[in-house]
Amino acid sequence: MPREYRHTRRVQFYETDAAGIVHFSWFFRYMEEAEHALWREAGLSIAPPGAEIGWPRIAAAFDYHRPLHFEEEFEVSIAIAAITRKTIQYTCLITRGPTKIATGNLTIACVSKRAREPLRAIDIPDEITSKFIHDS
Amino acid sequence: MPREYRHTRRVQFYETDAAGIVHFSWFFRYMEEAEHALWREAGLSIAPPGAEIGWPRIAAAFDYHRPLHFEEEFEVSIAIAAITRKTIQYTCLITRGPTKIATGNLTIACVSKRAREPLRAIDIPDEITSKFIHDS
Amino acid sequence: MPREYRHTRRVQFYETDAAGIVHFSWFFRYMEEAEHALWREAGLSIAPPGAEIGWPRIAAAFDYHRPLHFEEEFEVSIAIAAITRKTIQYTCLITRGPTKIATGNLTIACVSKRAREPLRAIDIPDEITSKFIHDS
Amino acid sequence: MPREYRHTRRVQFYETDAAGIVHFSWFFRYMEEAEHALWREAGLSIAPPGAEIGWPRIAAAFDYHRPLHFEEEFEVSIAIAAITRKTIQYTCLITRGPTKIATGNLTIACVSKRAREPLRAIDIPDEITSKFIHDS
Repeated sequence: MPREYRHTRRVQFYETDAAGIVHFSWFFRYMEEAEHALWREAGLSIAPPGAEIGWPRIAAAFDYHRPLHFEEEFEVSIAIAAITRKTIQYTCLITRGPTKIATGNLTIACVSKRAREPLRAIDIPDEITSKFIHDS
Repeated sequence: MPREYRHTRRVQFYETDAAGIVHFSWFFRYMEEAEHALWREAGLSIAPPGAEIGWPRIAAAFDYHRPLHFEEEFEVSIAIAAITRKTIQYTCLITRGPTKIATGNLTIACVSKRAREPLRAIDIPDEITSKFIHDS
Repeated sequence: MPREYRHTRRVQFYETDAAGIVHFSWFFRYMEEAEHALWREAGLSIAPPGAEIGWPRIAAAFDYHRPLHFEEEFEVSIAIAAITRKTIQYTCLITRGPTKIATGNLTIACVSKRAREPLRAIDIPDEITSKFIHDS
Repeated sequence: MPREYRHTRRVQFYETDAAGIVHFSWFFRYMEEAEHALWREAGLSIAPPGAEIGWPRIAAAFDYHRPLHFEEEFEVSIAIAAITRKTIQYTCLITRGPTKIATGNLTIACVSKRAREPLRAIDIPDEITSKFIHDS
């Protein structure tokens, strides 16, 4: 039962900006890509067709240490830092070889999907939590 | 000499995701749009042609309170929270009418632009700082 | 009853790429922004909440004549070139002052919204067609 | 010496829109990703650091046959259709298993990189053309 996921990714041209580096907004997408891959590793989809629950992001942050450039390969590691009754918190580390590029975090909440209503958190279903928790 | 900027914006279709709401990564772009408009208000461009200094983002965060949907109009307010010798810190508030949608912050550093080098902060030129500081 | 729409837009930083110009994929978003504004001018939304019909794109193209750079202002004009029983065809012209930047076209089809089914075109409802057709 | 490239890709959440499918603008990015991978296969980078030539897109188009949804895997094939003295033309096919999703084409021109000048095509250097041409 996985609590972290790591994959290698290459910078695409459309992710760069006129400063010649990856635009800072892209790191949040890199983090989310890794999150969804972690869920797939756990045998889950975060947004299966017809889902009655959803996972809006309630907080996200990045500290940027070094830039990324076109075609560079880098690694994205995401780990579950905490699971509360209604939220999951992740930490994320982005590196390029030995170089620390950025460190991020993300908190998502479990909500029942009712269009156009405020985000109202519900308890995370056991069948989801259990996929991320080691029994011992 | 402006220290804050506020504008109204409409959600575009390509900013939404399959959950039917604006993707969380877009809020960082909304914040940056407002930042650059603030600089223009101050008579500056954050990235003029041939610039020898640049302004990489060194930290960015958002807390999300309510979602935004396609075609909704919303307000983005950005304010300078602090100017240090080498950095500028902003706070950002996104609202839709009386509803608080999200609160963010952003820190940028002043760097001399040397391609493919680590981000090395330099002192912010006086002619930039002075545009954002009230004399009284 | 409008058949064309024109608005002015400024290049945002996140729309540029490492070549220092607007990434070519963005022109399709500029065209769509203008399309949706045209629909609003006609008193319509192309994707109202709970809509039972949708408007997938079935063809899109651009020819690029000149680049756009950060903070440049440009004009996007979209016009309905043809309305058939099941499709709407637009032409789009992007200019910066007297300079022709790009010319595009877009064809959309009217479909009944059934998740995960092939795109199956239906007749465009009269109440929509009538909003775009001049009576005389 | 490769003239085509094919890879498998998964739909990311941020590529979807409120219609629940991949936004049509993304197909142009999928096509470009495959193009750049084709260049890497040929031992080239389309935008190496300090490059004195660039490859702006002068025409791009897609016909859309079926939608793509979150997490679906699909294949992107790109092939060089023609190399002229100053341009390269590609065709692109996007499939999901046996299902044809979209067909596209892209024309790029070789230009000398002078900031803020009109795109002026130059002859493609032999050392690039030769990488894509079969000797027999």
